[in-house]
Amino acid sequence: MNLVNDILIAEKRIKNHINHTAFDYSMKLSQITGAQVYLKCEHQQRTGSFKFRGAMNKILSLNSEQLSKGVIAASTGNHGQGVALAGKICNSPVTVYVPQTASKLKVDAIKSWGAQILTVDGDCLAAEIIARDKANKTGMTFISPYNDQEVMAGQGTIGIEIAQQCQDLDVLFCVVGGGGLIGGIASYLKHVNPKIKIIACCPQNAPAMYECVKAGKIIDVPELPTISDATAGGVEPGSITFEYCRDLIDDYVLVSEDEIANAMKTLAQTDSWMVEGAAATTVAGLLKVGEQYKNKKVVVVLSGRNIALDKFLDIVK
Amino acid sequence: MNLVNDILIAEKRIKNHINHTAFDYSMKLSQITGAQVYLKCEHQQRTGSFKFRGAMNKILSLNSEQLSKGVIAASTGNHGQGVALAGKICNSPVTVYVPQTASKLKVDAIKSWGAQILTVDGDCLAAEIIARDKANKTGMTFISPYNDQEVMAGQGTIGIEIAQQCQDLDVLFCVVGGGGLIGGIASYLKHVNPKIKIIACCPQNAPAMYECVKAGKIIDVPELPTISDATAGGVEPGSITFEYCRDLIDDYVLVSEDEIANAMKTLAQTDSWMVEGAAATTVAGLLKVGEQYKNKKVVVVLSGRNIALDKFLDIVK
Repeated sequence: MNLVNDILIAEKRIKNHINHTAFDYSMKLSQITGAQVYLKCEHQQRTGSFKFRGAMNKILSLNSEQLSKGVIAASTGNHGQGVALAGKICNSPVTVYVPQTASKLKVDAIKSWGAQILTVDGDCLAAEIIARDKANKTGMTFISPYNDQEVMAGQGTIGIEIAQQCQDLDVLFCVVGGGGLIGGIASYLKHVNPKIKIIACCPQNAPAMYECVKAGKIIDVPELPTISDATAGGVEPGSITFEYCRDLIDDYVLVSEDEIANAMKTLAQTDSWMVEGAAATTVAGLLKVGEQYKNKKVVVVLSGRNIALDKFLDIVK
Repeated sequence: MNLVNDILIAEKRIKNHINHTAFDYSMKLSQITGAQVYLKCEHQQRTGSFKFRGAMNKILSLNSEQLSKGVIAASTGNHGQGVALAGKICNSPVTVYVPQTASKLKVDAIKSWGAQILTVDGDCLAAEIIARDKANKTGMTFISPYNDQEVMAGQGTIGIEIAQQCQDLDVLFCVVGGGGLIGGIASYLKHVNPKIKIIACCPQNAPAMYECVKAGKIIDVPELPTISDATAGGVEPGSITFEYCRDLIDDYVLVSEDEIANAMKTLAQTDSWMVEGAAATTVAGLLKVGEQYKNKKVVVVLSGRNIALDKFLDIVK
C-alpha cells in the first residue's frame, strides 16, 4: 500500500516538531494479564494527543499560498488542538468549528493556541458540513480529522517509532474511531511485520468502524454517549480509512462504559498515568482479552491525556 | 567543575537506556504566571522518576566483579526503583533497604523489578546506616541516592537535554532534597549559560538543603511530614551535593503543604499531568514567585509521577 511511503515522508517532515514518545514496559499490566505489556505513550505528544502528528504533516504539505489562506477544521477537541498548534508553527491562520457539545477544556486549549473558534448548533457532523462549505467558498484548506492521506500518514509515524522501539512485537491494541490512528499505525507495522496482530478497541456505545466493517461498507451507526469522547462521531461516507481498517484489523474488542472507567482507574494505579477516555478504551480492551496473549509481546497505544480533572475524578472515584 | 565532564560521559553511557523526556510549552501556566513556562517532563522517565538516570550511570560505571557481587541501596521509593531496574538491565543483584514508612506503591514497584526488599525499623537514615554496613561487610556496592559523583552526573544529563531543547532559557525551577538532581542539572546549565538563574523549591516542612546552605555547613534539620515524600530525609554529613547547591543555587522558594497540594491540582488542570509531591513542589514554587519572571523563559522540572491514586485523589479533591 502506498500509505507506507507517505508515512516515511511524513516522518522526515514532522520529526523536528513532534515529541518522540516513550515505549515503556508496564510491569503491573504484564502481571495482571500474563502478556508482556508495553505502553506506547503517545499521550506525551504535544497538545496531549496523537492528533498533532497528522495535523502537522498535513499543514507542512501545503504550499505557501495555501498556508497564507489558512486552514479549517471541525473538531470536538483533540484534532482542533493539533491543527491549531500546527497552524501556529507554520504561521497559517486556523479556524476551528466546534459542536456545542465539545468539552470546555479542549475548546479552551484550541483557543489558547491562537485559533479562531466558531461554535455550531448541532453535532460533529453539522460542524463538519459547515466547515467544509466555508473552505469551499474561501479557498481555505479543510483538514479532516482522519479522512485524509496526509493526516493518516502523520499518525502512521507512530508505527515507525514502535518498530524502532521493539523489533518483535506480536500484538498491537489501539482504539478505533474514524480509523486514522489505527489505520496509519497498522499500515506501517504490517509492512515491516505481516504477522503482527492488530486489535481494535472501541466503546460498545460507539462502535462505528466495527459495524461498518461488519456490514462491508460505511453505514450510519447510532451512538450513545461514551467516556471515549475523542473517538465518537461515526465514519464519514467515502472515508479512505474504511479499506485500511477492513484489511488491516484482525480483531475487535468492544468495551462497556464501566470497563472503560475501570481501565482508566487501573492505569492510574499501575503506571501513574492519567489518560482520557479514548486511551482508557484501549487499556480496557487489553484488560478484557489480554489473557489470550500470555507471554506475547503486546503494545497498547495510549492515544491522549486530554481529560478535565473533574471528569477524571468523577470516573475513577 | 569536573562534574560537567562526568555528565558528558554519563550521557554517552546511559543514552540508549533512558527515555529522552519531552520539553513542552505550557500555555496555561504561561498565562497564569506571565512567564514563558516550559515543562521538562522527567516524570516520563523509566520507573516514573529521574532517579533511574543516576542509578543507571552508577551501575554502568561498575566493573564485572562489582556487578556480580551486586548493589545495595536504601530508599523510600524512587531511588530504589531506579537502582532495581538498572540492576536488572545490567544483570546485577539488587538489595534495597526500606524504612517502614515507605509508600506501599513504591515498595511494590521496587519488588516488581526483581530486587530483594529488606524492611528496616526506623527512618530513612536508619535504613541507610544498615545498608552501608551490609555493603562494607559483603563487598557489595552501596549506591547513595545523591551523595555520589556518578549518581549526580546521571541526573545532570537532564541538563544536557534541556540545553538542547532550549538555547535561551532564563530560569530553572527544580525541587531540592538531597541536592543530586538540582546540583547535576545546574552544573551543566551554568556551564553552558552562566547567566541562567537556578531556583530551588522545597517544602517548608522539610527545607534541609536551604537550612544547610544558610548555616554554611551541613546541619541536622528537623522535618515535619510533607506531600513531597521523595525529597524528605535531610542531607547526609559530608555530602558532595552541598557545595554544588551552595555555589549554584541563586534562590530558594519554600512552599507550604497547601501550596503543594494546590500546585498538584493546578498542573492536572492546566496540562493533564498527574505528578507526585516532589514535582508539585516545583510547580508550587513557580506559582508562588513566577510573576517575578514576566516574559522570561522558564523551565520547570517535573521530577516524578510515582503517587498512589488514592493519595492523589485525596490531595486534589
